[in-house]
Amino acid sequence: MTTVHTHDDLIARATDADAASALQGTRDLFSLPEGVIYLDGNSLGALPSAVPAVVDDVMHRQWGERLIRSWNEADWWGAQTRVGDRVGRLVGAAPGQVVVTDSTSVNLFKAVIGAGRLRPGRTVVLTDPDSFPTDLYMTESAAALAGLEVRRVHPRDAVAAIAEVGDALVLASYSSVDYRTGELWDLREITDAAHAVGGLACWDLCHSAGVIEVDLDAGGADLAVGCGYKYLNGGPGAPAFLYVATRHQDDFDQPLTGWQGHAHPFEMRPDYEPAPGITRARVGTPPLLSVLALEAALTAYDGLSPADVRAASVSVTGTFIEALDALGVDLPLATPRDPERRGSQVSLRHPQAFAVVQALIARGVIGDFREPDIIRLGFAPLYVTHVDAVRAAVHVAEVIEGREFERPEFAERGAVT
Amino acid sequence: MTTVHTHDDLIARATDADAASALQGTRDLFSLPEGVIYLDGNSLGALPSAVPAVVDDVMHRQWGERLIRSWNEADWWGAQTRVGDRVGRLVGAAPGQVVVTDSTSVNLFKAVIGAGRLRPGRTVVLTDPDSFPTDLYMTESAAALAGLEVRRVHPRDAVAAIAEVGDALVLASYSSVDYRTGELWDLREITDAAHAVGGLACWDLCHSAGVIEVDLDAGGADLAVGCGYKYLNGGPGAPAFLYVATRHQDDFDQPLTGWQGHAHPFEMRPDYEPAPGITRARVGTPPLLSVLALEAALTAYDGLSPADVRAASVSVTGTFIEALDALGVDLPLATPRDPERRGSQVSLRHPQAFAVVQALIARGVIGDFREPDIIRLGFAPLYVTHVDAVRAAVHVAEVIEGREFERPEFAERGAVT
Repeated sequence: MTTVHTHDDLIARATDADAASALQGTRDLFSLPEGVIYLDGNSLGALPSAVPAVVDDVMHRQWGERLIRSWNEADWWGAQTRVGDRVGRLVGAAPGQVVVTDSTSVNLFKAVIGAGRLRPGRTVVLTDPDSFPTDLYMTESAAALAGLEVRRVHPRDAVAAIAEVGDALVLASYSSVDYRTGELWDLREITDAAHAVGGLACWDLCHSAGVIEVDLDAGGADLAVGCGYKYLNGGPGAPAFLYVATRHQDDFDQPLTGWQGHAHPFEMRPDYEPAPGITRARVGTPPLLSVLALEAALTAYDGLSPADVRAASVSVTGTFIEALDALGVDLPLATPRDPERRGSQVSLRHPQAFAVVQALIARGVIGDFREPDIIRLGFAPLYVTHVDAVRAAVHVAEVIEGREFERPEFAERGAVT
Repeated sequence: MTTVHTHDDLIARATDADAASALQGTRDLFSLPEGVIYLDGNSLGALPSAVPAVVDDVMHRQWGERLIRSWNEADWWGAQTRVGDRVGRLVGAAPGQVVVTDSTSVNLFKAVIGAGRLRPGRTVVLTDPDSFPTDLYMTESAAALAGLEVRRVHPRDAVAAIAEVGDALVLASYSSVDYRTGELWDLREITDAAHAVGGLACWDLCHSAGVIEVDLDAGGADLAVGCGYKYLNGGPGAPAFLYVATRHQDDFDQPLTGWQGHAHPFEMRPDYEPAPGITRARVGTPPLLSVLALEAALTAYDGLSPADVRAASVSVTGTFIEALDALGVDLPLATPRDPERRGSQVSLRHPQAFAVVQALIARGVIGDFREPDIIRLGFAPLYVTHVDAVRAAVHVAEVIEGREFERPEFAERGAVT
């Protein structure tokens, strides 16, 4: 690797990398404010330009003019599985296995209890102590209801722990990317280990879908959950998704038995009979403005392969790390330098991380802070370019070198950070 | 009551009633297609004119320009309880007891399991065999997980059944309006009976909120659920709501322990600690396009008292029934004639109800069919006038007298009816 020393060199190399990227031009599919480098797409994805026209049509024509008739005419009824199949293409799932519904939290609840019922008599669920907390909370709650025991085991120790648990294992439930550090885990190993003892694996793809090459089918995942509003850009609080591998669907007995998961919903039968296939993972009537916004958002991925997206992600995050090095920023990286072990974010540690993030935001570089000391910068490769990555690194260098984070206005914390 | 015999007389009386109504002019707050009399607001409410501008602002400015900052700046974080309080005003709930979240189905799941935990050691849940099916399915599923037994008892027999169950009663869970027949039940009696044996009552307000004078607080309700997309006009699949009376909130231990219900969500603590108040009934990140569309929709109720809305509803449904009588339509009413026992819909029985509904839709009178023989016509008093009611009755009379429903094109059933 050539060592680069100047800002101009960095920008020139980044410009070349952008021109050579398979994602060249995808940034034009997004509406981003002037002067902003948006590195928080791992928390809330940017607005895809295709969304407003679709939502306008949903409001004015489908809802306002066609009213209840749109359930058939606009196939609102099929939206959750139709959009699910579209998500499936990004995460290596063949059609008929993904449904867009509820929140990630609620879907994880279905997955844990559903897993317990797929493996009756077994008692142990393994999950990552460093999971996004909702995963821990929901897993514990579901396990308590289902009479299961949760053991918190770090992913690096999961394979050994699974062997130890043996035929008591119900489920190994892991995120493929750590939401704080951005470390990428090979869930295939954990899945293979779980299968070797007759257990199941659930993959949390919140920080993977849309940026990592996820191979749910090829990797043998049994269940998976993920988020619609991060790298999938579905808008604030966009519905989440749930994957149930075809081989488990006939026996997937999930506890949120709402009418839209029924085999014959309009016969209004007194007793629940789950629909065939992934439809049984639906619950109540879904928030269609948000479901259909997500559908429109996903068109930004049309024509892109997950491999191309992943390559761009690795290249952009690598460019950022390289630029930090070249600029002499010596903050500890929480994220692995090895691209094989790195998600689509770069997290830096700093004792005043909160104030550093505020100082960056004031410069138009929007990232976020995570307890206790993490500056978390997400690189959504569809709209964050190599040049953006270099510019962001320059801002980080200036904030740190100039001790800009010590200004009093950056110390105050809002409710949501 | 003067008997009216002619179409002109009926229209003249209806015109006078519209002019005298406290809701005079509210129809102008909705965007409805030309030539349609929309009697399906009990399934999907019409588009309030205030909604599109708000959703446009949410998309373009809050999401597109301000991005993640809108969680604070636009108070996305507080939206679910802020909109909940607005719903609360329509259902007799003082602030701090209603949250807009998830679907009705999911909220009922929380309510049933939460009720079981509020009344440990008790085992019986009573619910209506004629409930909307999702209520039955979710109640059964929740009860199975919580070790409870569900008994299906019609509301007319509920008070006696509660006395019989005695101190085994966890919860009496009832809808205030039957979704098929439109019959209105006095849930205060059932609630008093449940309290007399130390149990709880949950009210399902899907077909009541926004049309009936519901007094959750005054009536002593412990829990309630309801729908955002029917008479509240929040749009297709708008989020639902959950009410937990203040006196139960500290002990309300609901099973869907998502991070947005945590006391310190941004500290990312490893263990769940429920937030104070109704916030603990939140779960995952909510679909904000839909939540904020509902908030805008509810402005149509500004300045209207629930009593005025209820009076208009009774008057409009009464006008419709009276017009059917005057026009000689002799279909059996599934809905009580007594306005004290009538919700905001009129359901007629006909052996070819499906085809009758299709024939009415072809004339621009949009209602819906419910198994097995119900022509279900909802009257949303904010946008269905007395004159609409008379015109709808004339259409019904013509479809029945002319046997228009026998035309072959009205026999074919779509997926969603």
